Order: sequence, then C-alpha cells, then structure tokens
Amino acid sequence: MRRLRLILEYDGTRYCGFQRQPGQLTVQGELERRLSRICGHPIQVTGAGRTDTGVHALGQVIHFDTTGCIPVDRVALATNSYGSDLVVRHAEEAPPGFHARFSAVERSYFYFLTPRQPSPFVSRYAVFAPNLQPEADERMRAALAPLVGKRDFSTVAAAGSSGTSVRSLLRAGISRRGTMFRVELTADSFLRSMVRMLVGWLLEIGRGAREPQELADAVFRRDPPGAVVTAAPRGLFLMRVSYPDGFAEGTGAEGIANWWPGCV
Amino acid sequence: MRRLRLILEYDGTRYCGFQRQPGQLTVQGELERRLSRICGHPIQVTGAGRTDTGVHALGQVIHFDTTGCIPVDRVALATNSYGSDLVVRHAEEAPPGFHARFSAVERSYFYFLTPRQPSPFVSRYAVFAPNLQPEADERMRAALAPLVGKRDFSTVAAAGSSGTSVRSLLRAGISRRGTMFRVELTADSFLRSMVRMLVGWLLEIGRGAREPQELADAVFRRDPPGAVVTAAPRGLFLMRVSYPDGFAEGTGAEGIANWWPGCV
Repeated sequence: MRRLRLILEYDGTRYCGFQRQPGQLTVQGELERRLSRICGHPIQVTGAGRTDTGVHALGQVIHFDTTGCIPVDRVALATNSYGSDLVVRHAEEAPPGFHARFSAVERSYFYFLTPRQPSPFVSRYAVFAPNLQPEADERMRAALAPLVGKRDFSTVAAAGSSGTSVRSLLRAGISRRGTMFRVELTADSFLRSMVRMLVGWLLEIGRGAREPQELADAVFRRDPPGAVVTAAPRGLFLMRVSYPDGFAEGTGAEGIANWWPGCV
Repeated sequence: MRRLRLILEYDGTRYCGFQRQPGQLTVQGELERRLSRICGHPIQVTGAGRTDTGVHALGQVIHFDTTGCIPVDRVALATNSYGSDLVVRHAEEAPPGFHARFSAVERSYFYFLTPRQPSPFVSRYAVFAPNLQPEADERMRAALAPLVGKRDFSTVAAAGSSGTSVRSLLRAGISRRGTMFRVELTADSFLRSMVRMLVGWLLEIGRGAREPQELADAVFRRDPPGAVVTAAPRGLFLMRVSYPDGFAEGTGAEGIANWWPGCV
C-alpha cells in the first residue's frame, strides 16, 4: 500500500463543495471517481480543508492510499484527462505518517473584491462591491491588524463548529492592483465560514458602514453584531497548505502568490 | 429615434455564438432581451462581427435604434444587472450614419495557446497544445509574416463564404508570457473561420509537423493541404473593432491589449 499526496487546483463554480455527497458533483467525489479508474480500485481521498460550495482552490492538498502501481509522475496527466476545471498540479509519494489534514500547519486564503464591474473573465472569481471607498484598503487593513495572534474567533465563525474556536491568525493583509482588492489570510486553521465572515465585515468597513475598530471589538468581546453578511463564495481561493517537511513549496506555489483573476 | 453604440465583453462558453437563433442562448438574443426590457420596446442589435459558438469578446461593438429615453450613461449598469458573463463596458450615442458592421475598418483577434496544462482558471480561455516546441513562437512568427498584405485567403476560410475572399491582413504577431503564447491578428475583416484555421496551421507548425513556409505556399497557391484542423473556439477573443472616428479608443481598450488569461 502506497500513500500519495497531490496538489489540486479547481474552479469551484460547478461544484457543491469539497466533501463527497450522494447525487451531487463535489470535488472529492469527482477526484475519487477519476483516481479509482486510474488506480483500478475504489479510492478515498482526504483533503486538507473542506472548501464550501463555489469556493476555488489553487493549492488544495489531498492524500490517498492505493495498491495500484501507476507511476507517480503519470498521476497528474491521467487525472487531468477527465476534465479541465479540476486539475492535479503536482503528485508525489507521501512520507510515512503524512496526513493531508492533520499534518498541515498553515492554510492561506485569498479573497478578491472590486468596486468596478468585473469583466466576464473575472466575475466568477471576484465579488463586485460597488460601494467600496477609495481608502477601503487602508480601512480594511486597520480592521484586520489587531486580529493577528491567537484569538477566540467564535464571533466570526458559523454556528455549530465543534471543539475549540481558538485559532492562530498568522498573517492578514490587503493588496491592491488597479481596482482589484485582495484579502490575504493565513492561520494554523480556520473555523467554518470564518474567512467569508471576516470578508463580510471588511466589505461593511470598506464601504464605510462600520468603523475598522468594530471588528476587533466584536471578536474580543465575543459580541456578535447581528447583521454582518457572509461574503459570497466565488471570491474565495484556498491558496496554499503548508507542512513541516516543506511540501507544496517549489511546486509552482510561488507563482500562485502573484495570482489575480484576469489581467486587465 | 436614437442610435446607440456599445462595447461588449462576453465569456462565450455558454453561448451558441453571436447570432440570434430560436431556442438557443446567443449573445445577440440575450442582449436584445435585456435591452428590450430596459428600453420598453423590442430592440434589434447589429454587431460588428458574428463570433462563433464558444468564442469570447473583449471588444465587440454593436449598435441599435431605440425610441426609449434611457440616459446613455445608465445603459451599461442596467444591462449588466441581468448577468455577469455578458457585460456592456461602454455605451454612447452614435454619430449620424454609424453602423457597427459597415463602418468598421479594422478587427483584431487574440488566440491563446499553451504547452503547459492550463489551470482551471485559464482552461476556458486557452488551448492546451502539449506538443508545442520551445521555439514555436519563432516558427509561428515566420509562418505569419509573409501573409501580411492584401491576399486571397480562401484556403484558410470555411467553404461557403460568399463574395470576395480577398482581405487585407494588417498586422500578425506572436507574443509570449511565461508558457503562454498569444497569436495577434488584425485585418480589415476576416473570412468565416479564418482566424481559427490560421491558428490550426500555427499549431501544426509550432509542434514541428509542418514547416513555416507551407502556410504561405498554401495561401498563395490556393492549394488546400487537407488535414489542417480548425483550432478550438475557446482560445479566441474578439479584442477590438476600429472605426474612422476613433470609437473604441479611450474606453478601456488600451488595457485590453495587455490581457492574458490568468496571471500565474
């Protein structure tokens, strides 16, 4: 029995999220269907993170076990022949004890926002936020900065998460390119809906409906403010999952850090 | 009665081409549906060019006549509220005598090719050509250069075009960015399937199956070589239509010249 680990890119538009569900097109289901054919026996994959319906990935990591003998350098080509909106970018033999989810030490997400009507080549990958103020990046940056550290993020997570709601937010930034804003978040792991709820806050702060300080107040006081909307999934990308052995470095991940939807 | 002229961007993936067809989703049909609602009476639009099924546009131009009184600066916002894969980028009152098709003096197309497995965010907008040689750009450039000028292009057009098959190819180039190749063609107008048939030739030349000189030989001798495949529509973009009065300059068209699918 071998364990392989893969880096996946997918356009989440057509997928009902990562997790296998009967009768639904999901990333896990589609990938297992392809790998089972290639390996010649039923395959179950484990992902680093369960992205929601409509969320994209440039650096999802999965592992699976197989008794099949396909050379590892053929896995990407064989898997990618089945369709182009879910692509294996890299495959290798996993070291002993590797687990896509439990071995991961960091996850990074990007979220794209723009106050300009997106072109049709961008609209699946960014959210149109017509009311963002010119200084929205400064305001959003000021709102995120106090959150970096080990915090209880339950105020900005979907209800019903089990276990602790303490997470370490390692980096939080805002980049800008022309009229496009990019929210960049890295944590040890994220609570359910946490990135999209944080972006929902940033959208309100960016359009002037709330002050930057209110986000930290809500998180630290664990005082849910009610009306903050969870941002739409199409702007969200799972960019990178990091492991202690350096996996996912040197596999094209560097270029991904420069990724923006469209180039106009 | 007023005549308006619009610049359109569309992702052609879902559309059965530009031209209205009963029971099919087409660019013209969808745009007429939207404009008829906005203007309050049935609208017929005329496009500069009839893009095929699956072909995209960043600079299609259309005109239409209306008795409605919608302010021209509201047309884009109102039209774009109906969906995001067909977008009006610019709208203005047309000068007397303007006709989107008959007034046009130049059309420019881009076609994107890559020998690397495209990411899911690029695969709808570029063709995967795994056998392109490293020097493919040089070979493709050499093949195109002798075609620039006023030529009979019947060898590289779909059968059944009516009228003359003489066209003026004004500019023909190849750009490269990382592993992505961009074919850039400008002519007074193009014959049916001409761009995609030329790119079919370039694909064979780029992978070494034909010599650059063979394309010019086929065009000048009007000697169809048989097996050259028409390139897939998804790599093709109508970039720009030019008019004697300078329309489509200064409306964002400059940025479009730097457009590449994805940025990795």
